[in-house]
Amino acid sequence: MKLRELGEDRLIAHLVARLRTRREVIAGPGDDCAVIATREKDRFLLLKTDCVVERVHFLPNEKPSAVGWKAMGRTLSDFAAMSGLPQFALVTLITPPEREARWIKEMYRGLERVADRFDVAIVGGETSSTDGPAVVSISALGTVEKDRWVSRRGGKEGDALFVTGRLGGSIRKKHLDFVPRIAEARWLTAHFRIHAMMDLSDGLGADLPRLAAASGLGFELDETALPRNRGSSIAEAINDGEDYELLFALSLNDVSSLEKKWRKKFPHLSLTRIGSLLPPSAFRPPLSFRGYHHFQ
Amino acid sequence: MKLRELGEDRLIAHLVARLRTRREVIAGPGDDCAVIATREKDRFLLLKTDCVVERVHFLPNEKPSAVGWKAMGRTLSDFAAMSGLPQFALVTLITPPEREARWIKEMYRGLERVADRFDVAIVGGETSSTDGPAVVSISALGTVEKDRWVSRRGGKEGDALFVTGRLGGSIRKKHLDFVPRIAEARWLTAHFRIHAMMDLSDGLGADLPRLAAASGLGFELDETALPRNRGSSIAEAINDGEDYELLFALSLNDVSSLEKKWRKKFPHLSLTRIGSLLPPSAFRPPLSFRGYHHFQ
Repeated sequence: MKLRELGEDRLIAHLVARLRTRREVIAGPGDDCAVIATREKDRFLLLKTDCVVERVHFLPNEKPSAVGWKAMGRTLSDFAAMSGLPQFALVTLITPPEREARWIKEMYRGLERVADRFDVAIVGGETSSTDGPAVVSISALGTVEKDRWVSRRGGKEGDALFVTGRLGGSIRKKHLDFVPRIAEARWLTAHFRIHAMMDLSDGLGADLPRLAAASGLGFELDETALPRNRGSSIAEAINDGEDYELLFALSLNDVSSLEKKWRKKFPHLSLTRIGSLLPPSAFRPPLSFRGYHHFQ
Repeated sequence: MKLRELGEDRLIAHLVARLRTRREVIAGPGDDCAVIATREKDRFLLLKTDCVVERVHFLPNEKPSAVGWKAMGRTLSDFAAMSGLPQFALVTLITPPEREARWIKEMYRGLERVADRFDVAIVGGETSSTDGPAVVSISALGTVEKDRWVSRRGGKEGDALFVTGRLGGSIRKKHLDFVPRIAEARWLTAHFRIHAMMDLSDGLGADLPRLAAASGLGFELDETALPRNRGSSIAEAINDGEDYELLFALSLNDVSSLEKKWRKKFPHLSLTRIGSLLPPSAFRPPLSFRGYHHFQ
């Protein structure tokens, strides 16, 4: 069977089903970052890798600094998803030998700009040539306090679902200059008990069902409430992907306090209640509701 | 300027020259792994990434399990270089949608075989499609005792230089089934004061000058003493690359004890003294002495 037919989710499920683990692994494949216990009493380590591929995640004529920004930003966004603090990054560059050295230097400057903004040190990496498209892959290591880490799995029946920012139409610009929601996620877990959280990379239509499934629940979505970017339809807000906003679940009891405090703390970033977590199998997504899937 | 003309070493030197760091970083770009201090008193964290690219590091008709073995083995070999213990790995798979799912499953089995052998847990990863060659990138996290980590930088004038195993001709088979020298490196630092160490990935001709330069020294090499794989010339033992053996430096005083104990502990793996570290600029490599360089 070709990968195209099997699909990304089924492939990954097959691959990870038989993996051996170690007792230090608190969360492994299937969450935004791997979570690892060390001898430090109050913190976990977080480990994450992500990549951008030319003609898949960016076009050859894109500004190289924007490509670097996106590559680093995607990985750091997964730390936001867990309320973690990224600290160290490795950079893998795979490029054709004909590529202008200037392209690489500018791309690297984009990487550094995001890294510097979040106090992440680039501590190494790897380079290789290729006869195909350029690839930039970023791995990062960070930490999260044990009492503040949030997975996709902790959602409870009746929880309110929120998203930060606006969704849809990312391809027009935002997919290259989004800001990982690390500050927002850190603030959320400092002030509220967030039950489940993830970052929206494949589109709400793919990612919300994943969060609900990881929590063993169904969900309802108020499509008319979706915060949309200018020019985006409801379908685009659901399916476009690459929003890099936070999706999270918390108790109904906290909703009004959250909304009030958020407006004060982040007056320029919208926070929108978009639905609820429901009993399992309460929702079957229609066919149009799918988000972005690789290999298809 | 094209990357091909600039070359890998100069590109990397340019990119890393201006990077910001963090105080926890003990060793950053330029060593085999990044070395990071945490609040743990007696250990450092090690972080490393490496990749294999189709038609650069493996051929499309290669056995997929051997491709996986190589991808994981390359990264773990860098932990050996520092006398470290790898513990956790992330796997990035970039493949065309037309690739047979079976290829990926078998490749993954190769990854797992090396990981299991060294008690490394695969804790996550990323997948992407591409219209180019397949790429497998592996990042790993591990630890090393503070009093046992070895960099390339500690070599001293007069030190004896040793290599494990045999060099040259790796392309015929060994580049796909080598065993990372973790057990050997751990034994070395448990019993001897190893001043400098690295793994040979680009060939002795490229890597030995790097170790000497990192230690601020020159070197002499006894070419006739080089342990060669069957059918390999001296030039091939120097230039072929992908040996994944250890190169290390230790005091002359330890040489005879090392040789005796090694034969007892590792009777099936040769250990060969190949030269010495000398005062700076004592050696200028001839043009033929260059090892493998990407982008050229």
